[in-house]
Amino acid sequence: MQRAAALVRRGCGPRTPSSWGRSQSSAAAEASAVLKVRPERSRRERILTLESMNPQVKAVEYAVRGPIVLKAGEIELELQRGIKKPFTEVIRANIGDAQAMGQQPITFLRQVMALCTYPNLLDSPSFPEDAKKRARRILQACGGNSLGSYSASQGVNCIREDVAAYITRRDGGVPADPDNIYLTTGASDGISTILKILVSGGGKSRTGVMIPIPQYPLYSAVISELDAIQVNYYLDEENCWALNVNELRRAVQEAKDHCDPKVYQDNVYSPDCRFHSFKKVLYEMGPEYSSNVELASFHSTSKGYMGECGYRGGYMEVINLHPEIKGQLVKLLSVRLCPPVSGQAAMDIVVNPPVAGEESFEQFSREKESVLGNLAKKAKLTEDLFNQVPGIHCNPLQGAMYAFPRIFIPAKAVEAAQAHQMAPDMFYCMKLLEETGICVVPGSGFGQREGTYHFRMTILPPVEKLKTVLQKVKDFHINFLEKYA
Amino acid sequence: MQRAAALVRRGCGPRTPSSWGRSQSSAAAEASAVLKVRPERSRRERILTLESMNPQVKAVEYAVRGPIVLKAGEIELELQRGIKKPFTEVIRANIGDAQAMGQQPITFLRQVMALCTYPNLLDSPSFPEDAKKRARRILQACGGNSLGSYSASQGVNCIREDVAAYITRRDGGVPADPDNIYLTTGASDGISTILKILVSGGGKSRTGVMIPIPQYPLYSAVISELDAIQVNYYLDEENCWALNVNELRRAVQEAKDHCDPKVYQDNVYSPDCRFHSFKKVLYEMGPEYSSNVELASFHSTSKGYMGECGYRGGYMEVINLHPEIKGQLVKLLSVRLCPPVSGQAAMDIVVNPPVAGEESFEQFSREKESVLGNLAKKAKLTEDLFNQVPGIHCNPLQGAMYAFPRIFIPAKAVEAAQAHQMAPDMFYCMKLLEETGICVVPGSGFGQREGTYHFRMTILPPVEKLKTVLQKVKDFHINFLEKYA
Repeated sequence: MQRAAALVRRGCGPRTPSSWGRSQSSAAAEASAVLKVRPERSRRERILTLESMNPQVKAVEYAVRGPIVLKAGEIELELQRGIKKPFTEVIRANIGDAQAMGQQPITFLRQVMALCTYPNLLDSPSFPEDAKKRARRILQACGGNSLGSYSASQGVNCIREDVAAYITRRDGGVPADPDNIYLTTGASDGISTILKILVSGGGKSRTGVMIPIPQYPLYSAVISELDAIQVNYYLDEENCWALNVNELRRAVQEAKDHCDPKVYQDNVYSPDCRFHSFKKVLYEMGPEYSSNVELASFHSTSKGYMGECGYRGGYMEVINLHPEIKGQLVKLLSVRLCPPVSGQAAMDIVVNPPVAGEESFEQFSREKESVLGNLAKKAKLTEDLFNQVPGIHCNPLQGAMYAFPRIFIPAKAVEAAQAHQMAPDMFYCMKLLEETGICVVPGSGFGQREGTYHFRMTILPPVEKLKTVLQKVKDFHINFLEKYA
Repeated sequence: MQRAAALVRRGCGPRTPSSWGRSQSSAAAEASAVLKVRPERSRRERILTLESMNPQVKAVEYAVRGPIVLKAGEIELELQRGIKKPFTEVIRANIGDAQAMGQQPITFLRQVMALCTYPNLLDSPSFPEDAKKRARRILQACGGNSLGSYSASQGVNCIREDVAAYITRRDGGVPADPDNIYLTTGASDGISTILKILVSGGGKSRTGVMIPIPQYPLYSAVISELDAIQVNYYLDEENCWALNVNELRRAVQEAKDHCDPKVYQDNVYSPDCRFHSFKKVLYEMGPEYSSNVELASFHSTSKGYMGECGYRGGYMEVINLHPEIKGQLVKLLSVRLCPPVSGQAAMDIVVNPPVAGEESFEQFSREKESVLGNLAKKAKLTEDLFNQVPGIHCNPLQGAMYAFPRIFIPAKAVEAAQAHQMAPDMFYCMKLLEETGICVVPGSGFGQREGTYHFRMTILPPVEKLKTVLQKVKDFHINFLEKYA
């Protein structure tokens, strides 16, 4: 064995008989078997290095939690150690983490989750009947009536039924089949699973995955992990990031020279205009489309108004998928056994909230409106303030929980960035972090047209705090322009 | 676009600005952009087929939830539809799912989880103070004091500290560093992450992963998904599945001709003899080993006496890993943002249960002893009964929650299996399922020496039910021998 690394499954109840009935001595024998090689090797040498590791994993980049976020962590530690800074706290505006920013959980969801977690509470008078009803239904569908059992790999049946009913309501009656619903560990898990199945081939038949730029870095990360080719098509910033079909054609044509392009498309979400699912549009275009196009759609407990990121709940709906492929999908999902059952339960409440006439409906509606109303207010606030700043342009925020303003970076600053071997917008965001404690993500992590610069910032902080954040960014930007004029 | 598949991120708050500010018409435009290709293509044609999909994913096999389990699901549906069978229920003895088999959750763990889920309960007199103390500590370490926030990719700090303290206690003072602890989505997530980083190279430098046979199918599944080479070394069934160092040497030597072998080793767990972690053994062997060998160890909330499978909580400890590789590990983990925070909280209780003097200690100890006592009783019961059956041999069950008896399959049955294009033990297990409703996993899914046959069965059913199961297996086996004599 020239090289050896030991992976050890430890502790209570490893899953194969290979761990049975060994004495202390045989344990030592096992270990020494792993170690025999060591004397041949010098003290400091490591088996697993940047050179020897999986090159596809090494190629992965993930801006949302990249260098800027590591730096933010370091600064937080320095603040804790009492090191003086021009600010007293780091504001993590890099990620859409609603409850970390102070958003309160939706009471009803947490009541149902608590009842599922500790069923003794089903006898407690301090929980509403509609919450108990939901909890009983979920528990009855769980093995041993417990969240502690594995679920089917595809997810708990009655939760998949609730998701299908939710999609059918949302699409105005276009039917959804529970058999096409797969519960996942957040949306990320579903997206990477579908990409994993989609990717194949080498050389010119290597899979190209078309993604809209700016993209969410999950896609580029999974694409490079799978050794597929990222095919960019640029959304039209001047036209509120709309898709231009000619640009899509251009990207496809260029891609076909060196790979086999497949398409990823993001979808419309805006509080101001109606939501249109791709699936519904397909149905409106007729059976030639609705019964042919293979479509996978994703949703999660994280990014809705409930903002339950930590539960890692999600689902995907697939339509027109070949039955054999659905079999492959279940097989692949079964390797990780099942998504967290608590996350599945949370997903159930997201798609199956209190309705008019139910005991909890009024409080639920109040809480929901307050979250969405605040979000709309913050969106306007952010757009207005950014657009007052010379050298910042921000499109109207009509959905989601982020701003992606375009920033002008002077030539001198670009040179300074190059001197530090940094992308200009990374240089900008690092300075912003170091001078104000505000952590945002450089646009280069999402992709942007050559020569344009942006950053992504969440608008989730409470209104008063958001005002401070925006004012700080404004002051920083003006100083930055002067400094590098 | 000769081929197109649409991946659509749906609904509330997609994470990139690409979804902002589009009107209904632009939504339609997007959809039609995806669909332009369709008219060229015939109705039934599918883009994603067994031929076009990722061949590595296609190659994945996962016996624990394989064809036998799908068949079990079909039979359950038939029973629900009132179709008559020689049995009234399917007993899923294929997987170690304690609570699905009726094991009650540990009260203290669920109390802490309920308190974390719905903090209003912190004011309730019906929860013990020590549970409230644990819950407050966990919540204080969560963003916004909520399980609904993302945690750091590596996991919640104070939980990693508790894991490190637990490991230090367990290894009699050998220190564990919280910085080396990574919280995961069950043990499976950690194991596949480490394998993902470990695998590299093509041709002769392709990574070979050495695994003990019988193995847990996760390893073979991940290895083929990563297009690495599985290198088997056989454990010694005649010697209670102990490892034979010469067999390990043989496997390494043979492997080196066609790949670059690395070692996976399972570990000792037995209620009868002390637990020895690899890490502790390394330390006992001196610094030449303890400060050189790169080791990754795994544990989860599922397979311990708490049996909380559904929460998908787990951790891994790595030692002597190159700092750059630890950076790569965090980067890779960050792509899935964080493990379920509820699972992390459950993991905290597994490593940090009530101690003597705490209010909940007595009840906790009672519950723990009852689980472990029952397991020992069932292990003995299973071994004794199997060994009474002609053509079945079962090693002593000294750990875990499974039996892996060796079964004799007559030549005529082997022929019958071949006629059905089934492995003989798959044929045996299918017959067992169809005739008795008992679902076990064929040994071929775990690997076994050529010409030997086994099945894996969990011993988790309640004692009375387990007795019935064992009696049914006995009767089936005797009939099977007669039928194919």
